[in-house]
Amino acid sequence: MASYLGKHIHVSIFGQSHSPAIGVTVDGLPAGEQVDLEQLQTFLNRRAPGRSLLSTSRKEDDRPEILSGLVDGVTCGAPLAALIRNTNTRSGDYDNLRDHPRPAHADYTAHVKYGGHQDVAGGGHFSGRLTAPLCVAGGICGQILERRGITIAAHIAAIGGVEDRPFNPMGELRTVLDSVKAAPFPVLEEQAGEKMRAAILAAKEAGDSVGGVVECMISGLPAGVGSPMAQGLESQLAAALFAIPAVKGVEFGEGFQAARMLGSEHNDPFRMENGRVVTESNHAGGILGGISNGMPILFRVAFKPTPSIAKVQQSVSLSRQQEEPLQIVGRHDPCIVPRAVPVVEAAAALVALDALLDRNTDSLSGGDYR
Amino acid sequence: MASYLGKHIHVSIFGQSHSPAIGVTVDGLPAGEQVDLEQLQTFLNRRAPGRSLLSTSRKEDDRPEILSGLVDGVTCGAPLAALIRNTNTRSGDYDNLRDHPRPAHADYTAHVKYGGHQDVAGGGHFSGRLTAPLCVAGGICGQILERRGITIAAHIAAIGGVEDRPFNPMGELRTVLDSVKAAPFPVLEEQAGEKMRAAILAAKEAGDSVGGVVECMISGLPAGVGSPMAQGLESQLAAALFAIPAVKGVEFGEGFQAARMLGSEHNDPFRMENGRVVTESNHAGGILGGISNGMPILFRVAFKPTPSIAKVQQSVSLSRQQEEPLQIVGRHDPCIVPRAVPVVEAAAALVALDALLDRNTDSLSGGDYR
Amino acid sequence: MASYLGKHIHVSIFGQSHSPAIGVTVDGLPAGEQVDLEQLQTFLNRRAPGRSLLSTSRKEDDRPEILSGLVDGVTCGAPLAALIRNTNTRSGDYDNLRDHPRPAHADYTAHVKYGGHQDVAGGGHFSGRLTAPLCVAGGICGQILERRGITIAAHIAAIGGVEDRPFNPMGELRTVLDSVKAAPFPVLEEQAGEKMRAAILAAKEAGDSVGGVVECMISGLPAGVGSPMAQGLESQLAAALFAIPAVKGVEFGEGFQAARMLGSEHNDPFRMENGRVVTESNHAGGILGGISNGMPILFRVAFKPTPSIAKVQQSVSLSRQQEEPLQIVGRHDPCIVPRAVPVVEAAAALVALDALLDRNTDSLSGGDYR
Amino acid sequence: MASYLGKHIHVSIFGQSHSPAIGVTVDGLPAGEQVDLEQLQTFLNRRAPGRSLLSTSRKEDDRPEILSGLVDGVTCGAPLAALIRNTNTRSGDYDNLRDHPRPAHADYTAHVKYGGHQDVAGGGHFSGRLTAPLCVAGGICGQILERRGITIAAHIAAIGGVEDRPFNPMGELRTVLDSVKAAPFPVLEEQAGEKMRAAILAAKEAGDSVGGVVECMISGLPAGVGSPMAQGLESQLAAALFAIPAVKGVEFGEGFQAARMLGSEHNDPFRMENGRVVTESNHAGGILGGISNGMPILFRVAFKPTPSIAKVQQSVSLSRQQEEPLQIVGRHDPCIVPRAVPVVEAAAALVALDALLDRNTDSLSGGDYR
Repeated sequence: MASYLGKHIHVSIFGQSHSPAIGVTVDGLPAGEQVDLEQLQTFLNRRAPGRSLLSTSRKEDDRPEILSGLVDGVTCGAPLAALIRNTNTRSGDYDNLRDHPRPAHADYTAHVKYGGHQDVAGGGHFSGRLTAPLCVAGGICGQILERRGITIAAHIAAIGGVEDRPFNPMGELRTVLDSVKAAPFPVLEEQAGEKMRAAILAAKEAGDSVGGVVECMISGLPAGVGSPMAQGLESQLAAALFAIPAVKGVEFGEGFQAARMLGSEHNDPFRMENGRVVTESNHAGGILGGISNGMPILFRVAFKPTPSIAKVQQSVSLSRQQEEPLQIVGRHDPCIVPRAVPVVEAAAALVALDALLDRNTDSLSGGDYR
Repeated sequence: MASYLGKHIHVSIFGQSHSPAIGVTVDGLPAGEQVDLEQLQTFLNRRAPGRSLLSTSRKEDDRPEILSGLVDGVTCGAPLAALIRNTNTRSGDYDNLRDHPRPAHADYTAHVKYGGHQDVAGGGHFSGRLTAPLCVAGGICGQILERRGITIAAHIAAIGGVEDRPFNPMGELRTVLDSVKAAPFPVLEEQAGEKMRAAILAAKEAGDSVGGVVECMISGLPAGVGSPMAQGLESQLAAALFAIPAVKGVEFGEGFQAARMLGSEHNDPFRMENGRVVTESNHAGGILGGISNGMPILFRVAFKPTPSIAKVQQSVSLSRQQEEPLQIVGRHDPCIVPRAVPVVEAAAALVALDALLDRNTDSLSGGDYR
Repeated sequence: MASYLGKHIHVSIFGQSHSPAIGVTVDGLPAGEQVDLEQLQTFLNRRAPGRSLLSTSRKEDDRPEILSGLVDGVTCGAPLAALIRNTNTRSGDYDNLRDHPRPAHADYTAHVKYGGHQDVAGGGHFSGRLTAPLCVAGGICGQILERRGITIAAHIAAIGGVEDRPFNPMGELRTVLDSVKAAPFPVLEEQAGEKMRAAILAAKEAGDSVGGVVECMISGLPAGVGSPMAQGLESQLAAALFAIPAVKGVEFGEGFQAARMLGSEHNDPFRMENGRVVTESNHAGGILGGISNGMPILFRVAFKPTPSIAKVQQSVSLSRQQEEPLQIVGRHDPCIVPRAVPVVEAAAALVALDALLDRNTDSLSGGDYR
Repeated sequence: MASYLGKHIHVSIFGQSHSPAIGVTVDGLPAGEQVDLEQLQTFLNRRAPGRSLLSTSRKEDDRPEILSGLVDGVTCGAPLAALIRNTNTRSGDYDNLRDHPRPAHADYTAHVKYGGHQDVAGGGHFSGRLTAPLCVAGGICGQILERRGITIAAHIAAIGGVEDRPFNPMGELRTVLDSVKAAPFPVLEEQAGEKMRAAILAAKEAGDSVGGVVECMISGLPAGVGSPMAQGLESQLAAALFAIPAVKGVEFGEGFQAARMLGSEHNDPFRMENGRVVTESNHAGGILGGISNGMPILFRVAFKPTPSIAKVQQSVSLSRQQEEPLQIVGRHDPCIVPRAVPVVEAAAALVALDALLDRNTDSLSGGDYR
């Protein structure tokens, strides 16, 4: 089961790194929503590789073909399906990897789970390439949200030890969000960005890789969206975010820092603002009891360093049952964090739209149900 | 939707802090499993309040009555239902809270979501008391896992700024796990425990509260358990953990620390040990691509400080639409972390059993399906 | 997995015929809905046994205790849980049945599925008694629907070969529906009812049993409710109806009769009525493409004869692996159809409310989502 | 939500009659299963149109392209995706249909549900053409079942009033099943087939259409497969079958006929046969309490006459809000029943494989879970 299964939005991602195509089916999109394919492509390009020295030089043409679900560019209620062709399929020799699982990759665990039948080429279904169809789904959901004043924006919060300034938890200006979404290297402080790029290049030159953190903000989500317990916003966002390859941590608001705070420091006092209930601070990251409180939703996502490094590593031969060294060939991202920024936004968009769609079903008292 | 919905294990938790009862239905337990009710009670007592100066003095009798699902103490395949009576229901006056949402509680968000119909007494369905039926479900799943050599143990990793030594990611001795599970204040180093208790008492005396971190280890889970993407172990564990009230962060293995590491530091090299593939280190926390690799599963869970504090706080009057001070009366845990330790184990047990049950369906090649 | 899992309404039924209690958790009910417990009891009494010579003389007190989900009789958004105590538990000797599966019961199939661990007493989880909590859930959903002008009413369409007149597919007067719902033996034509009762008594005197058909109508459901394919109204209603013990057939509108018709006979022509699109006839039973068309929803449900009969039957001894005769003792309904009428209504109510709640999520174009 | 969502097998069908493509994603297939694409094509050809005078003359090339999920023709554990191009897309003028809903089609109900945004061309997502991807999914599941001795075969039981002989409920010879699956017009008695074809041609010549019944048998399913209540075999099969366009009734074993029988006639006595528990008769259609008893699973599916007929019908103009006549142009199947036979088999295969995969999780007592 590879799909994201919200209550309303069902996303079924398919494909392997070297299968004829990768793609996605999105079921549950509301009908009557315009999909701007050019804007979607702009969003996808933020994830695409080969745009700079900082990422893998493999050039993919991540241009999705919409197979169904649209009529004249508008959702028609039927599932939306899209595919992206893999142009460079099964050409390499992956027999070496079949026998030698790459450290920190899913090669070994997939081998055990699927009894040796998994697709090893390029990481198969576990390849980071599968985040492209996730971005197709999330990009479309993001457009639907944007039309209702809900904006999702993320930036690189840290790479290695270098940190960008965090989002203002009380909200950011629209121009700031727009500019970080348009930036080729999405940081809030350009100085931090320069140091980060230096850290990536240093890792690359050393045949190594480096991890980082992405911070994301959902602005404009009204209060009362979400549900208690395992259907809560934090649970659902975390489930979607940990589905992104290389994610090892997720925190909301103060997150792990909250564990060091006193209640009197952490509790966000309520106050009125223009007839609306707001909070004085936003340590909670906009979520209380799994439900939005109307403040910006804030969370941070930790990415491990790219597992594929040029340095020789120790692996085992599964057939000979002994340790053997492994040299991973090919070119890889020394740091996937810059390309992961729109992927985090995409995952957040799926969950936010799903929760928003659910809002009308909490209480029928105000609605006309005849 | 308050339930934990695994693929096999469906947990439906019901009840409010002051409803006649709270309880749980667990559907999907395999038949033929002995349930040791005394051992279950021992597990539940680890969560129960009123055992020391460190927790609320409200005394609850968390003795579940099993309503169905067992025949002579053995699961029969039918859903297992259990209830715990609330002895002290709707006695207080909660009209004050209905109009004045408590900061950092779900009072306001539930008010918006349910159009003012939510149960405000004692936090209603959002009360920490609802973790008792979660522990009933998780405690039973834990027994089924234990019987198959899978042990789940957690400890207090930090309270305020005081830290316990972490679990050895390569595994802990059985005696260590047993002793921390039996300890009234579950830490690995008693000295750290003393300092933590002092921090809790200091917060209590100041009319304040303090947060902390729980670390949990699942030992003995075989390799190959889990699934890719949103059905992966990390996604499913995170969804269950963020369903616990006050959780604000979840990380696996090195977690946020991985964001500061190089690939060559973080990647766990494979080696052979007694004919079994293992890793030299366990920075991954036992999970690669959402699937277990046979090493201990390790994760850390951040809890915010208890929102209910004695100090006067600023709230709003929802009816008068203006700021008003709020004094929360009653006695509350100055730190919920010690009592949260078995709750984390319980949530982990649900997910681990669910994933384990799924293992036989990945490949039919070895099985006899006629 | 014993639950009915709609998209919004999750019903988890628990209990065995002789467990301490049976009951139900209903998650997803909208908040702010009054639940009239007296009216619910009236509904449950229609299912209760022991009311006449025609049903089993076992007297059960089917008085549910609401454990959670209500505040002052109004739904609060939290799951509603209810239990019914089994007063007469595990008193009998069922060892005979453990070894000798009753023909046409689930004894043997449960034995295989659960490896011999199933609860055999009184049929365990497969007992018709489990329809009582289903009626609790469905009765509450029915009240919510009724408040919005949606009425669900069923009657005995046939017992043995005796047939009642069918519902008028274009709709019935409110007084007719009310009167059939209030009748102790729910038929539209009293003469047919007399003959049916005679058929039941004849079967009873012969130590035998007899089957029948229930016809059900959902009036007032607006057009546009439902979904395509497996989430359609017919699929979802059928899944809920076949969950009722003894159901062997379900048909909508003309059903199997449609197979004998020409398109020109079967197609319902559209026409306008008071500015509303209606159909001239209702062969479709109010559903096209899985979605309601605004006409009454009509379906028929076939029940097999009660499997428990007094006559000696041939079974096998599972331990001795040989044929042995079986005499079922105790008193049983010679025909369960009269008591099944409200159960059919209850199952329909779950599905109808679930589909209705979903309606607001199809298109956001009209709604205010900020 | 258009998908079939079993516990293990998730099928997401996408496409509209005139979208660029239709297709399917199948998640949850066990790894290591050979997929014979030629055999799959043979299966699909049984559904394909244009093969005789009896069906629509529109010629489609239903040749699926497998996009993912296979490595060298063997399932790899990743979702299997397939698409079929629509060669003849959006060429026609459907504005007439947008305003004039066709009687007995989903035009009007989709219009209401999707607020006028539905795809009207060729019936959009509600077109019978969407059964092609269903057959891709079901055909693959059928191969996996067949390899384990489980055969699913269906035939035309009736068209108009003409009836084929029914399957022998105790089982059919392998040669009979093979021959009916290979027949261009799948009946058991060729004489009945001739009369049926005459009935179809008569309807066609009259500009009319005719309905029918498909009977299906699942042979070789072991006892103990299925679950109680709404997850039972009957509920799950019915949900999948009613997802097929034009299905209006489903019955198992004796079905509606059971309503006329006495318990002593209907109950199937148990007996031993070669150390195996079997029944003397099979009125139950192989299912008791939602669980298979090891006898053949038998069910019948009623199809309404094709709604598209050449005769002028009465419709309404949605824009002008008045009655207007409608003449449906184009060529349509005068009877879809012959082409529906493999579709019924496909739906049954999804459910049967899903239930079979679940079998290993009922009890862990026999398995090795370490």
